[in-house]
Amino acid sequence: MRTIHVIGIGAGDPDQLTLQAVRALRDTDVFFVLDKGEVKSDLTQLRRDLLDAHVPEGTYRVVEARDPERDRKAGGSAYSPAVGDWRSARAGIYERMITEELGEEQTGAFLVWGDPALYDSTLGILEEVLGRGRVTFAYDVIPGISSVSALVARHRTGLNRVARPVQITTGRRLAEGFPEGVDDVVVMLDAHQTFRQYADQDIDIYWGAYIGTPDEILDSGPIAEAAPRIERLRAEARERKGWIMDTYLLRRNPREV
Amino acid sequence: MRTIHVIGIGAGDPDQLTLQAVRALRDTDVFFVLDKGEVKSDLTQLRRDLLDAHVPEGTYRVVEARDPERDRKAGGSAYSPAVGDWRSARAGIYERMITEELGEEQTGAFLVWGDPALYDSTLGILEEVLGRGRVTFAYDVIPGISSVSALVARHRTGLNRVARPVQITTGRRLAEGFPEGVDDVVVMLDAHQTFRQYADQDIDIYWGAYIGTPDEILDSGPIAEAAPRIERLRAEARERKGWIMDTYLLRRNPREV
Repeated sequence: MRTIHVIGIGAGDPDQLTLQAVRALRDTDVFFVLDKGEVKSDLTQLRRDLLDAHVPEGTYRVVEARDPERDRKAGGSAYSPAVGDWRSARAGIYERMITEELGEEQTGAFLVWGDPALYDSTLGILEEVLGRGRVTFAYDVIPGISSVSALVARHRTGLNRVARPVQITTGRRLAEGFPEGVDDVVVMLDAHQTFRQYADQDIDIYWGAYIGTPDEILDSGPIAEAAPRIERLRAEARERKGWIMDTYLLRRNPREV
Repeated sequence: MRTIHVIGIGAGDPDQLTLQAVRALRDTDVFFVLDKGEVKSDLTQLRRDLLDAHVPEGTYRVVEARDPERDRKAGGSAYSPAVGDWRSARAGIYERMITEELGEEQTGAFLVWGDPALYDSTLGILEEVLGRGRVTFAYDVIPGISSVSALVARHRTGLNRVARPVQITTGRRLAEGFPEGVDDVVVMLDAHQTFRQYADQDIDIYWGAYIGTPDEILDSGPIAEAAPRIERLRAEARERKGWIMDTYLLRRNPREV
């Protein structure tokens, strides 16, 4: 039976791999890598460095494929169908890679930045491949340190306040309004700096980009003051590196009753 | 200058330590442990096993203190003040331990189950100690695999669905109603199996206890069917071990429009 590990490799700091992840890396015959294009080549290099650091050379193969184009321009209600198409296209690629590149008794792995549990499509796609019924495999999931966890650790703060909830959401959702019933909100996948929309409120922001890597940038403070700083830092970093991955926590201060 | 590491040691599986956490453990002269009483002695043993496995004997000391009694009977709006009192009492203990047991050039550590970012008081208490101004120290936070991450990894599912938010909350909050604006809710610190309150709804539950340890129990399914099973499993396990730590994800199915 083919086996597949879905391995959370942390947010960028190679020391944030777990011992379990290192073991799974060493146990892997074939790593499947989907190339997202040139802008993310730093990430591809980071991933290669991880393998070099932890897995003896010559014990594994890397199989690369080109990620299907995702229709990023589709907005509003068109978002989900576009993701659906993209997911099916990706499932086709995964299916072929597993069938053609992984021997019946071999172990493959997908490496996922952060934690495979948060805004990652790998598990859904593997289920779709299994559902198609043309190839069978066992798989397991190795949790990783998410960028969310890494962000608040660097800021030395918690995700929630005492006995209170925290919500993790997307920039797109935040643009629709501050979530109901929570004052602590972590925002991922925000290409539009949606936090600016709340700059007139009594909110503290804890922001980080390239967390855990040598390029890490952190900033925090009352959002009215921090937002323009972050906007500038973000633009400069993006210009310099050609891409940016950032995450932030918005912490709304309790209103006087 | 005294240094303190706040180290997330994962949800129970010793292999879910990160390399960064192992390094911080080895870098520590004095481990501060607050004893929560006999029912949690399994946890104290697990923590001792971690140290035995990763840190050379004779390179560190363990300083134990008795956790202040927490008024667990205080309900409703009395909850926060009770936590406040308890936190101050704990800050006093931390302050004494750091002042009396940690040399000026030494490194101390607090080991936190899961991730220090989620429903843990250590960071808040250290800030309170610093605020009192009687002792100074530098501190950093090493993120860990939370029970939330470990739970969904074992169930091989994600925390969020595509482009949707997830909320992490407490049993007490869930008792007040299903959170607004989210369909995926992770519940921690629920001593009252509040999920039963939602057993008539179209919700799937993913539940786990003692996650990552040899005692791990998992169950999942439509909540109407799973709730009575989980109730039974939970009662049996609690009876057998004398304590239980469990976490669950509630995933509400989209309503027909």
